[in-house]
Amino acid sequence: MEQVVAQIYSLIQSGDWPVGTRIPPEPELVNQLGVSRNTVREAVRALVHTGMLETRQGDGTYVCSSSELGAALQRRFQRSALTETLEVRSALEQDAARLAALRRTPEDVEAMKTWLTASEVADNAQTYIEADVQLHMSIVKAAHNSILLELYEHMTESIQQSIGETVDKVVFSAASKRLALHKKIHRELIDAIVAGRPEEAILAVRAHIEAAQQAFEDQERGDAK
Amino acid sequence: MEQVVAQIYSLIQSGDWPVGTRIPPEPELVNQLGVSRNTVREAVRALVHTGMLETRQGDGTYVCSSSELGAALQRRFQRSALTETLEVRSALEQDAARLAALRRTPEDVEAMKTWLTASEVADNAQTYIEADVQLHMSIVKAAHNSILLELYEHMTESIQQSIGETVDKVVFSAASKRLALHKKIHRELIDAIVAGRPEEAILAVRAHIEAAQQAFEDQERGDAK
Repeated sequence: MEQVVAQIYSLIQSGDWPVGTRIPPEPELVNQLGVSRNTVREAVRALVHTGMLETRQGDGTYVCSSSELGAALQRRFQRSALTETLEVRSALEQDAARLAALRRTPEDVEAMKTWLTASEVADNAQTYIEADVQLHMSIVKAAHNSILLELYEHMTESIQQSIGETVDKVVFSAASKRLALHKKIHRELIDAIVAGRPEEAILAVRAHIEAAQQAFEDQERGDAK
Repeated sequence: MEQVVAQIYSLIQSGDWPVGTRIPPEPELVNQLGVSRNTVREAVRALVHTGMLETRQGDGTYVCSSSELGAALQRRFQRSALTETLEVRSALEQDAARLAALRRTPEDVEAMKTWLTASEVADNAQTYIEADVQLHMSIVKAAHNSILLELYEHMTESIQQSIGETVDKVVFSAASKRLALHKKIHRELIDAIVAGRPEEAILAVRAHIEAAQQAFEDQERGDAK
């Protein structure tokens, strides 16, 4: 059984079965893995318990996270207020910016600049959000701490939808003024990291968080009207 | 089966079966939970998969974490260098100190002062380490963010042994000078939080981290001799 769990685990972690896909039905897995139906069933159940797979009644079994840590974090975040998750993510982001300013390699700088440009030329909300997520991810990667990166990735995954629906859309739809502010802060942040100025990078992240919170609050007020 | 998993889960989470204990043998669980031996076995296996239980050959099954998130984080930290874990913990600590300075209640202040005093009067390494861990925990609690607290607790759990063996012992055994510095930084940190000065609190945490890193490096050099 352990071996079958490990096999399925590696299908998920490798991305062969990406998050969101429905895994093959039981008989197919029996063939594919060459084990008994019981063993397949038990292995799937074990992975449902880790939170990596999810069984939907009358539908099938889906991949819901690519790692146990991701699954555990996702469930933890679901139990908390979005503001708590955002607050911790901000903490990680500040430290990432500080460390990135100390450790960025030429490749990191290139990646950050590429996504900065992509976000600047984005002409619709969808493209902008994608570039924005990648830009922030490239900063966290430049910090060269794999735990920091993994925690940040999982937090972003968990709140992606909320981000998409509220903050960034508001930023974009409120058009030129707010969007211009965000782009300015992004430029200052990347400049500080590239120049190797950690304290400036932290301040830029804080300005970014405050602008996002402002947008979020405006949105909430708008919804309440 | 699901129900039995949930029952065992709650025995662990409630602290009835604390981390480190060996759980009762199978026949006893069969009696206690009123289900078949097979169901007990499957439920235990499922919890071994989440990392909350661990089966030791020829010995028994032990509780190794009080939550799935804790178990997943522990395994993640085991795969990383201690320096990476310490770095992320420091990031969380800085943000906790900042938020604590903004949100501490009279009860928080009392708890922080109690542990500060306990660490100041500690006359051996063991007592000092305990008070030190509690002091830092009381700061993170004062930040009033449950995710931050949980991540911090699990990180501390994972590195407790290393902390005990290296940093704090070095701090204590190197006697008066280094210990006096640590105590001074602790006082400054608590003063800043109590007075509601977030930026000063962050600087104190950084000074604390630098002092700990210095102690750690001195220890490493000492070992290499």
